[in-house]
Amino acid sequence: MTDAWRMTATEARAAIAAGRLTPVALMESCLARIAEREPDVHAFAWHDAPQALAHARLADASKPLGGIPVAVKDVIETADQPTGHGSPIWAGFRPRGDAACVAWAKAGGAVVIGKTVTTEFATRQPGLTRNPANIAHTPGGSSSGSAAAVAAGFAPLAFGTQTAGSIIRPAAYCGVVGYKPTYGTISRMGMKIMADSLDTMGCMARSVADVALFAGTLSGRDLGDPDRGTEAAPRIGLCRSPSWKTAAPETVALMERVAGLLAKAGAKVSDRELPDRFAALEQAHPVIMNMESARSIGWELTTQRHLVSAGLREKLEPLLEEPGELLDGALAVAKGCIEAFPAAMEGLDILVTPSGPGEAPEGIGWTGDAAFNYIWTTLRVPCVTVPAGTGPKGLPLGIQIVGRMGDDRAVLAWARWVQNAVS
Amino acid sequence: MTDAWRMTATEARAAIAAGRLTPVALMESCLARIAEREPDVHAFAWHDAPQALAHARLADASKPLGGIPVAVKDVIETADQPTGHGSPIWAGFRPRGDAACVAWAKAGGAVVIGKTVTTEFATRQPGLTRNPANIAHTPGGSSSGSAAAVAAGFAPLAFGTQTAGSIIRPAAYCGVVGYKPTYGTISRMGMKIMADSLDTMGCMARSVADVALFAGTLSGRDLGDPDRGTEAAPRIGLCRSPSWKTAAPETVALMERVAGLLAKAGAKVSDRELPDRFAALEQAHPVIMNMESARSIGWELTTQRHLVSAGLREKLEPLLEEPGELLDGALAVAKGCIEAFPAAMEGLDILVTPSGPGEAPEGIGWTGDAAFNYIWTTLRVPCVTVPAGTGPKGLPLGIQIVGRMGDDRAVLAWARWVQNAVS
Repeated sequence: MTDAWRMTATEARAAIAAGRLTPVALMESCLARIAEREPDVHAFAWHDAPQALAHARLADASKPLGGIPVAVKDVIETADQPTGHGSPIWAGFRPRGDAACVAWAKAGGAVVIGKTVTTEFATRQPGLTRNPANIAHTPGGSSSGSAAAVAAGFAPLAFGTQTAGSIIRPAAYCGVVGYKPTYGTISRMGMKIMADSLDTMGCMARSVADVALFAGTLSGRDLGDPDRGTEAAPRIGLCRSPSWKTAAPETVALMERVAGLLAKAGAKVSDRELPDRFAALEQAHPVIMNMESARSIGWELTTQRHLVSAGLREKLEPLLEEPGELLDGALAVAKGCIEAFPAAMEGLDILVTPSGPGEAPEGIGWTGDAAFNYIWTTLRVPCVTVPAGTGPKGLPLGIQIVGRMGDDRAVLAWARWVQNAVS
Repeated sequence: MTDAWRMTATEARAAIAAGRLTPVALMESCLARIAEREPDVHAFAWHDAPQALAHARLADASKPLGGIPVAVKDVIETADQPTGHGSPIWAGFRPRGDAACVAWAKAGGAVVIGKTVTTEFATRQPGLTRNPANIAHTPGGSSSGSAAAVAAGFAPLAFGTQTAGSIIRPAAYCGVVGYKPTYGTISRMGMKIMADSLDTMGCMARSVADVALFAGTLSGRDLGDPDRGTEAAPRIGLCRSPSWKTAAPETVALMERVAGLLAKAGAKVSDRELPDRFAALEQAHPVIMNMESARSIGWELTTQRHLVSAGLREKLEPLLEEPGELLDGALAVAKGCIEAFPAAMEGLDILVTPSGPGEAPEGIGWTGDAAFNYIWTTLRVPCVTVPAGTGPKGLPLGIQIVGRMGDDRAVLAWARWVQNAVS
């Protein structure tokens, strides 16, 4: 077993291009790492080592992602691997085709290494995945297996999806980089969409450069090279956000520390809170998420209700009786805040805000609180979490960089700047 | 064979409730009509009469759609009938589950009578369906089979989807009612989504009351009973729209005639054109539609390119090379117009505008021009087409009623009012 599994995708690509590494050697290294750690971590819902190796042998090393192993969250369809959506209703389901994002990853030379554990339909009922930093703790969710796989060195890249905090939170808990792009940047076709107005395709990696490379390849966009640096230091708004009440002591301390380090690195740092109207998102987000999701899983709820978890049924079914005006009102609140957000960022390049309330909770029965995430998902703005030290139990903490809708390239560059400053 | 196939869904429901009709008798009547006319019309991509009859026997007549036959456009997944998306790539595909809209229709008591012909992925490459009003003519597209099935009396209700003009245009060409709701009203889950920002689930029927009943059941909304009438006459803006240049003589004459009849019926009628900025939608709409669609069918384009029609490849593939900023710019144009639309309707209840340039074109090689439709789809506003006489060749013409986003209930009521006035 070589140490190639430790490489980021960008490093591995450079090594492959220089002839120092082959796709097969990289895959073998990742597979050995999986064999060693997967029994503890349980990142995969499905993983077939010989198949992954066979595909690595066929990888076109000249492509932008040539030979890079990619883990795919199991709410995303794959033609050659089952897709279970984290639900017994879909166990063993074999889609005819790949989701669009998987097709573009493969067309870019990537090799799918397996399907990663998701909570039930990317909602709350957790799977068996554990946090590689400490297996007594949750990796977060709903992209549990993807965050754990990247953190454990099973693959340098993984797909995640976010409806509330399902990319940023698990990435932060596991100590990796998570990127939720502007809503709509990466095609969702072939993903199990639940809340149509919120669900966003994104990704995880162990560097900001990697998520830019990956998401750029999938979306056909030039998201830049965040490692290239920026011309100036950013104007940063430190945003405690309406969810500050949920911040654990380690997060309070982190924001203090980060503020000092960012200023020391040359950023113009000021406090910036969202206008009062944004507090209404706390009520609006769950209405949108749950009313849309209840309608989306109509087939499951009406034909195989007993196989939907009691927790999800209790959350969704009462909303089927609520009038459409309740959803319309919540969507109107979201729309108003989306339109007000550029003004709320006036004079700033980015906001810096916690990625989660604190370290990953103990146990795997609860994937943690999305308090610091649902706002930005509802606003449809790009978010990046970068690792920012550890908390009292030695578990990873992340810090979140947020920007304006469509400003993803700049946000990624600033995220790299912030990571440099706080490391 | 009885004449039950002639009934609207609302009439059939009343007859079933009164004990004058059974779901089986209704289905038998529709099946006999299909046996007679389908060889000419080719509305179905898949149809199994014994299965439909078996399901009618099990229908719960107490439900809102109890025993009503529903035809399903073949870009919508069905667990017990193949789903081909109008493409040889998906021929014979058997989904595991029903699309959400199909599940809610069934839960409401409806019986799926078959899958209707769609153009390739609901784009432009036509199927074999012919216009029941004159089989030498196209039924329009992309919801070709659904419009033809409803017009021919094969089913009182059918699903359609619209990205440019795929519900309103074929409904008008075939002489039936088409309803494209506010974007997002009916869940799209399990539909082959191409242009995520545009694709809208909707339906067709032979009365406005029917589309309100059907869409209300699917979406869990109370869309009212348009047959109940309104308290006053509407304030109507006659909108020739930026597409007036495409209007055939019969459409010019229709708008004249309609204006007179609406005023005679008591409406306050005035001319109302969209502000100049809306002209930019002519360029923005195809950019959004084709750039999003190109990314969505990544699996088809990258693995089975030879089975994608040459026409679609030529339209989509060059856009894969275009920068993301092109799409961002088009989406920004759309967003600006969406925000400006309420002001453009100031003082009006509805706009009345052509449903299409004229009668259905001759032949089945081209499904016609969506010039009078793409604007409203991009604006995400509710549209209803109602039959409004015939053109010089004796083919149906429709007139389109358009309202504000979310104002669907009122728009349906006004559509019924307009239909009364112009009949």
